Amino acid sequence: MSLLVVGSMAIDSVETPFGKRPEALGGSATFFSMSASLLSPVRLVAVIGQDFPEEHVQMLKERRIDLQGLERVPGGKTFRWAGKYGENLNEAITLDTQLNVFADFKPRLPEHFRDTPYVFLANIHPKLQLEVLEQVRSPKLVGLDTMNLWINHERAALLEVLKRIDCLTLNETEAKLLSGESNVAKAARAIRSMGPKVVVVKRGEYGALYFDQTHIFHAPAYPLEQVFDPTGAGDTFAGGMMGYLARTGGTDAAHFRQAMIMGCVLGSFTVEAFSVDRLKTVTGPELNRRFKLFRAMTHFEDLPEDFA
Amino acid sequence: MSLLVVGSMAIDSVETPFGKRPEALGGSATFFSMSASLLSPVRLVAVIGQDFPEEHVQMLKERRIDLQGLERVPGGKTFRWAGKYGENLNEAITLDTQLNVFADFKPRLPEHFRDTPYVFLANIHPKLQLEVLEQVRSPKLVGLDTMNLWINHERAALLEVLKRIDCLTLNETEAKLLSGESNVAKAARAIRSMGPKVVVVKRGEYGALYFDQTHIFHAPAYPLEQVFDPTGAGDTFAGGMMGYLARTGGTDAAHFRQAMIMGCVLGSFTVEAFSVDRLKTVTGPELNRRFKLFRAMTHFEDLPEDFA
Repeated sequence: MSLLVVGSMAIDSVETPFGKRPEALGGSATFFSMSASLLSPVRLVAVIGQDFPEEHVQMLKERRIDLQGLERVPGGKTFRWAGKYGENLNEAITLDTQLNVFADFKPRLPEHFRDTPYVFLANIHPKLQLEVLEQVRSPKLVGLDTMNLWINHERAALLEVLKRIDCLTLNETEAKLLSGESNVAKAARAIRSMGPKVVVVKRGEYGALYFDQTHIFHAPAYPLEQVFDPTGAGDTFAGGMMGYLARTGGTDAAHFRQAMIMGCVLGSFTVEAFSVDRLKTVTGPELNRRFKLFRAMTHFEDLPEDFA
Repeated sequence: MSLLVVGSMAIDSVETPFGKRPEALGGSATFFSMSASLLSPVRLVAVIGQDFPEEHVQMLKERRIDLQGLERVPGGKTFRWAGKYGENLNEAITLDTQLNVFADFKPRLPEHFRDTPYVFLANIHPKLQLEVLEQVRSPKLVGLDTMNLWINHERAALLEVLKRIDCLTLNETEAKLLSGESNVAKAARAIRSMGPKVVVVKRGEYGALYFDQTHIFHAPAYPLEQVFDPTGAGDTFAGGMMGYLARTGGTDAAHFRQAMIMGCVLGSFTVEAFSVDRLKTVTGPELNRRFKLFRAMTHFEDLPEDFA
């Protein structure tokens, strides 16, 4: 089934302990759709400026991503982000943010996008997320991402949109901030009472936790020896998760389990190189092999029958 | 099979956001043996002072822990530790440490302890750990724990003992400190080159990672809504892991998988109450039920056959 994503496209400047990459393709919708398009047909809504390199647009087209919702602003400048990672790679220090055309972004869905069954509202202003929801018709599953900025300063709008979605993905710090709880399980319960039936808490190199009314699932991150650039890992994870759900048509806990592992699989590729470099080259058999590595990493037998 | 542990017994004073407990039973050998004795026969080597409450000794006896290696120093004072946890419970702030009789601890193994097949050297001075190894005869598996103090100040002795053990358990910060690597997988590889065939990296609320030459295994921690006091969770984990290995007689990766999950199961009980309160009451059927919760939390199906 098809998957709609609304989010940012950006030109990043990234520095890690292993190197620098100016003018790197970035943005939540970019990582999400490069990841998800390996699994299901993707429709993208985002905004870029006149400076946005045409080669990136071509690359997305080659992935058969539907770009009819991609708005290019004549004379405009693309959203830019510059960041730097220290030795532990866990958190980026933002050096510069220029919203540019993203400041006036008004997501407009082409008519045929309005019936997309799987919808993901990447991290943008909750009022824009609401505007997208006004434009879609009875989706099967709506996922949403957010950040500390909206939790702190646009709480009313965020709470409004949370009532109308199925699955919230956010990182652990954000979950605690949104809920006011310092315990992750309590935080997830509190957030579920705000609307989403499913809460997925992202924990970076420690993986991700799934909570619904009756299930808890833990997806680990793969302990890679070479983590090169963690930029976009969370959006890649969400893309893999939503892409797998859309591919299989599932929405229940059993599907979410495999979907989250697929998200972790894709995230583990993204961090191996700058930008979407690795997502560009990764193949189906490679996804399959790494999925099996995750099985091997997590599998254990039941206790013997006579254990008590 | 039998399991020997050499470590500390202590009187702790603990403060968490949920309450205070002065004069609490603590120490690495205490948590380890209370945990392991639910799974296999335990032999304990430790030292206590004259002030050590007899009721604790009785409790260990009721667990059928062999206490012939427990030395009580007449007129001596038991090792004391005071610590406090903040809201996130991840790390204790040490308020006071009094080594007392522990300062002059010389582990002496009763003759029948010397042939114990499973041996665990809890976190004590590496020179003492070496002295224990001099006293045991061809053990099947030797596990060892250590800490930043010995990594920083007794490195030569620590490297000596590492050459002679099978499995090192240590937390992530310590693994990075010991190896000089900021990446956990690289750190584990570097540590394996120092001697231990198996490295188990403890990550607190994020679980634990197993590394040997060919396998990686991830055991998650259970996201409990009520974490009351994390003191002793790591030693409880090690006790559950080693206790399960001793019970089954296994030493390979498949046994370590279940053993680490059992360690996480026991750790999840310990943190529910102060000191060893929960370890005192937990039953075999409770362990069994929580083990099944860990299965439910980690299980996911293989990809469909036609996935590529």
